[in-house]
Amino acid sequence: MDDSSDTLRRNAVQVRIVSVDGNGAVERPDRVAAEEPMEIRVGGPRQPLTQVAVTMRTPGGDFELAAGFLFTEGLVSPEDVARVAYCDDLDDQDQRYNVVRVRLTRGFDPSALGGRNFFATSSCGVCGKASLDDVEVRCAPVASGPVVTADVIRGLPEALRERQRVFDQTGGLHAAGLFGEDGSPVALREDVGRHNAVDKVIGEAVLRREIPLSERILQVSGRASFEIVQKAAVAGIPILSAVSAPSSLAVEAAERLGLTLVGFARGDRFNVYAHPERIAA
Amino acid sequence: MDDSSDTLRRNAVQVRIVSVDGNGAVERPDRVAAEEPMEIRVGGPRQPLTQVAVTMRTPGGDFELAAGFLFTEGLVSPEDVARVAYCDDLDDQDQRYNVVRVRLTRGFDPSALGGRNFFATSSCGVCGKASLDDVEVRCAPVASGPVVTADVIRGLPEALRERQRVFDQTGGLHAAGLFGEDGSPVALREDVGRHNAVDKVIGEAVLRREIPLSERILQVSGRASFEIVQKAAVAGIPILSAVSAPSSLAVEAAERLGLTLVGFARGDRFNVYAHPERIAA
Repeated sequence: MDDSSDTLRRNAVQVRIVSVDGNGAVERPDRVAAEEPMEIRVGGPRQPLTQVAVTMRTPGGDFELAAGFLFTEGLVSPEDVARVAYCDDLDDQDQRYNVVRVRLTRGFDPSALGGRNFFATSSCGVCGKASLDDVEVRCAPVASGPVVTADVIRGLPEALRERQRVFDQTGGLHAAGLFGEDGSPVALREDVGRHNAVDKVIGEAVLRREIPLSERILQVSGRASFEIVQKAAVAGIPILSAVSAPSSLAVEAAERLGLTLVGFARGDRFNVYAHPERIAA
Repeated sequence: MDDSSDTLRRNAVQVRIVSVDGNGAVERPDRVAAEEPMEIRVGGPRQPLTQVAVTMRTPGGDFELAAGFLFTEGLVSPEDVARVAYCDDLDDQDQRYNVVRVRLTRGFDPSALGGRNFFATSSCGVCGKASLDDVEVRCAPVASGPVVTADVIRGLPEALRERQRVFDQTGGLHAAGLFGEDGSPVALREDVGRHNAVDKVIGEAVLRREIPLSERILQVSGRASFEIVQKAAVAGIPILSAVSAPSSLAVEAAERLGLTLVGFARGDRFNVYAHPERIAA
């Protein structure tokens, strides 16, 4: 897990604020979650790099984000990734840590972007029902995977929350965590963007050649949208749990792709929106 | 405000769930927030339409979303918009209400998309520091605008919350509301996407030729990211208040663009991250 004090300092940016309460206003220092653009460039051996995406993200786990984004958007397979690094030949050295290049073991065909020669956020790439078919084709079917107890599901939001280090300082970050079938924590990432946090935990597994994640549970801090379900399915994750509400398309996608979808996981209670068979009665 | 019972029914989709609590599991019906893709096409008089964006959105306020998106992303001015309608000549009639065409009074130059010939979410378009300069150039400076009392700011989150009709049924929607300087509600929109809710309230003003919104306060239900600040600034809104945390780039953008940025507006308390001079001591 990437929780060095250096990353922590970089990701909780100090600002001066005016704090107002019932007694009046005081000026004081505070911390806010860092948000910076990151550009992803991709190329094969000795091939010129193609600019594939710019995403607003919280710095930290940048290589994992790049790998996870390219994988969950269907642009590369885990075994394609040869090397991930910052671009060190930029004119603007200020941006040095905001441009990541991914070298593949094979050539990269820019037409794989399908005319989208510039994604602009991490949530891009797949939209709507037509693409739901596309995701189904692209994904290996999600394996039947583990059956877990209700208590394991109940424990995940708190386990996620207590590991959120930057959130503690800023109150401003989404988190995504991978857990084992017994609820043991495997990986956690934070980001201003929900999709980025998911791409980072999946990207870490991509870089370690641990895909598919057939025995894992993905817990997210916010809502479950279609795109979160899509990313989990591409990574082969059988159970997705969200602290907050799912959308209608998220439910439909989970149903069709074979994912167990849990929402409103709070305290004793949670709701299962699709494939409850993986949760023991 | 778009709160007919028909829209409400369409936006709170019925599903069957398994609800688990300390006593066990029961199957029951529930409602989730609708999420569907919407495509935006743009063209001048008798010009072929250009596909500009696909965004995942909650149906309802679609014309406002299209107008607001095109305006806040800097692609059209309010006076350019001649007519907004659903495309009724699609092969796939199922998608009829998911494709919106915007006819302009002038020709549309696809090169205005700057190589991004396909936005894929509503949060696209402007990324990072370089673009912060771009937004500054594009925006008229935000006018000095009203000075409001702390009590007006304190009342906004609850005023927003009590008008959220779909949220009441699903717990799953972001909201954006425009308010007068005395805290009176002017417009409210809900969406699965934070940016879409903002585009919808601003788009409504675009279609009514009420831009710039120099006397308005924008209250949002979630966090304040860079892109929310950007959209408010393009619309000339002087005060932006968020229930939750701002990001570092949101604070920097608000500072530079002249917006008053309020965060963590809860109960008696709130924090001012930029330009506190518009809030009376």
